[in-house]
Amino acid sequence: MADVTPQTTAVIILDMAKGYGWKPGSFGYEMVAQVRKLKDAAYAADAQVVHVNSIRRPTDHISEHSRMMVGSEGLEVIPELQPVDKDIIVYKRYLSGFSHNDLDYTLRTMGCETVIVAGASTDNTVLWTCADAHQNHYKVVVVEDCTMVHREKEPPGAKEGALRIIRNVLKGEVLPLAEIKEKYLKPS
Amino acid sequence: MADVTPQTTAVIILDMAKGYGWKPGSFGYEMVAQVRKLKDAAYAADAQVVHVNSIRRPTDHISEHSRMMVGSEGLEVIPELQPVDKDIIVYKRYLSGFSHNDLDYTLRTMGCETVIVAGASTDNTVLWTCADAHQNHYKVVVVEDCTMVHREKEPPGAKEGALRIIRNVLKGEVLPLAEIKEKYLKPS
Amino acid sequence: MADVTPQTTAVIILDMAKGYGWKPGSFGYEMVAQVRKLKDAAYAADAQVVHVNSIRRPTDHISEHSRMMVGSEGLEVIPELQPVDKDIIVYKRYLSGFSHNDLDYTLRTMGCETVIVAGASTDNTVLWTCADAHQNHYKVVVVEDCTMVHREKEPPGAKEGALRIIRNVLKGEVLPLAEIKEKYLKPS
Amino acid sequence: MADVTPQTTAVIILDMAKGYGWKPGSFGYEMVAQVRKLKDAAYAADAQVVHVNSIRRPTDHISEHSRMMVGSEGLEVIPELQPVDKDIIVYKRYLSGFSHNDLDYTLRTMGCETVIVAGASTDNTVLWTCADAHQNHYKVVVVEDCTMVHREKEPPGAKEGALRIIRNVLKGEVLPLAEIKEKYLKPS
Repeated sequence: MADVTPQTTAVIILDMAKGYGWKPGSFGYEMVAQVRKLKDAAYAADAQVVHVNSIRRPTDHISEHSRMMVGSEGLEVIPELQPVDKDIIVYKRYLSGFSHNDLDYTLRTMGCETVIVAGASTDNTVLWTCADAHQNHYKVVVVEDCTMVHREKEPPGAKEGALRIIRNVLKGEVLPLAEIKEKYLKPS
Repeated sequence: MADVTPQTTAVIILDMAKGYGWKPGSFGYEMVAQVRKLKDAAYAADAQVVHVNSIRRPTDHISEHSRMMVGSEGLEVIPELQPVDKDIIVYKRYLSGFSHNDLDYTLRTMGCETVIVAGASTDNTVLWTCADAHQNHYKVVVVEDCTMVHREKEPPGAKEGALRIIRNVLKGEVLPLAEIKEKYLKPS
Repeated sequence: MADVTPQTTAVIILDMAKGYGWKPGSFGYEMVAQVRKLKDAAYAADAQVVHVNSIRRPTDHISEHSRMMVGSEGLEVIPELQPVDKDIIVYKRYLSGFSHNDLDYTLRTMGCETVIVAGASTDNTVLWTCADAHQNHYKVVVVEDCTMVHREKEPPGAKEGALRIIRNVLKGEVLPLAEIKEKYLKPS
Repeated sequence: MADVTPQTTAVIILDMAKGYGWKPGSFGYEMVAQVRKLKDAAYAADAQVVHVNSIRRPTDHISEHSRMMVGSEGLEVIPELQPVDKDIIVYKRYLSGFSHNDLDYTLRTMGCETVIVAGASTDNTVLWTCADAHQNHYKVVVVEDCTMVHREKEPPGAKEGALRIIRNVLKGEVLPLAEIKEKYLKPS
């Protein structure tokens, strides 16, 4: 693993946007503090942070998701994870972080080799993002305690089932933040 | 559902290729006869059949999957499902049926609105194909008894877990062949 | 041509952004008033207006084009063509209007069949946008007096050469604004 | 240019297929011998040769080009340029060599940095292929005496006009075969 350096690593934070209701006391809000620690570790190691949020347009002919409509406040990253200038913000048109946008182009031109993926939901955006990253030959790493199924009524196994697929099918690594920091985000 | 006609429907059969070892007596071979019935139903209804198989090149820098190397017999559809001239054969470069090929272009130019997905594995190629189809706005339908996790040592829940994601996250329909025929593949 | 309605038509305006120096008295500024008339005709006919401007990121490893850097004022549409809420704004990562963004997805989900292309430069962004539109099966129409080669030292034949390719190779229509209005943008 | 090695270079030969009528005595046939020399130089330097030919499907809803229909002999590389096993053959669905196929994926995974482009037509497939290659950050080089406008009635300026765009807009190099061999295809 000697050749994985923070300079070729991107930390991708998925759908931590206002439109998804991350507020103190809301379902799953505890994870926000953990993702904040991930961002700080990325900064300390000089790894690139990339926020990827959903965006919809009135012309899309999709029934759901009106809270992510272009021009609305829902698209903004939540204040707890407030982006700084050097962060990259990418909008995805549907589920995967790579959906109809410049995420692959941006990672590729920056020389990214490894993506560290966090955010919600593990069995939706996180899963599709890992699949697309793997199929574009990025090494995939998921931060186990920085991802969740952000839908209240799912059975508890939903997260574990998705992580199993990421591990067994996509050959991704799934590690807790403490190990991610040790292995991939050592301060330079 | 009155507007779903076989003429705007494609039956997509994934990775039923010689390289994956579908032989009498082998693990999961029973499903082949079921997929044969699906193909026959598609023909009777005049729906387009599309076989999508993997292909790898010596330059790919992937360790696995040498049985699907370009030029090898492993790429061919198994004889039980022998394509006829009007079938479409598409090669995918990695996991999803849409991986770096003309599947979306081909479906789009033919006017396809609904994809009926079958083949292996449910938690791999089938899952990613359904995700990509949904994100390109095709209606997704999976044939429950024409898909399986084609790896011997997986826990039995692997297939059900993937189908749950297809249903709950991708809003896909998962139905047995008998109902698919009734609802989507009525002979014209 | 009876089936070309403004409702399935998008007017795509390319690179009319502050970063490209469209100011009174500058080279080619006369065209701005003409493109303004095109926008007004699109509104009157209820056709969708789409502005596509370039965007670069500090990580891109491209030497040129620093005036289109993310976060800078250069990315904004020039005031003379000030977008209204119902306009769509798309950012392209490199030359073509379709470069690594959601333009195709957005046109496709809105049901677009015909694109009317304007802006700069005819032998660069306009040409690549027409090629990509044609290859994605949109009917291509270029507004002859709303496009130019926006580089001062090019020989005068540069625009005509590019239009020849659009006509002969891409089978696009090239018409002056007056005819475009008559044929494609009749007020409803 | 010290870092351009044949090992990161691909020689892309466009539309030199039977369906386009390259036969002794036919319009433009002289170029075939020149492209043969390019292939031989690529082999001597151990650069990867990639043939990209068109393919159409009966479902495409395109009026033209019936000679490139899937399953027909027209798709095959002409005998003078007979591919060997280590050549890569890619099919493009429309005009550009990158149209809806795995060309970019294949170049990327092999570590390609420079593409040397040859074939027909200069103001069509060659032009779009160069644009897409440049926009995906490959260095673009065109072999001036291995490309032509392969349509009999075009004015002679058609080739030069396209090469001007490749030089001035895409910042591509346009060099005769002798110089290409010297600069990019030195035998190892």
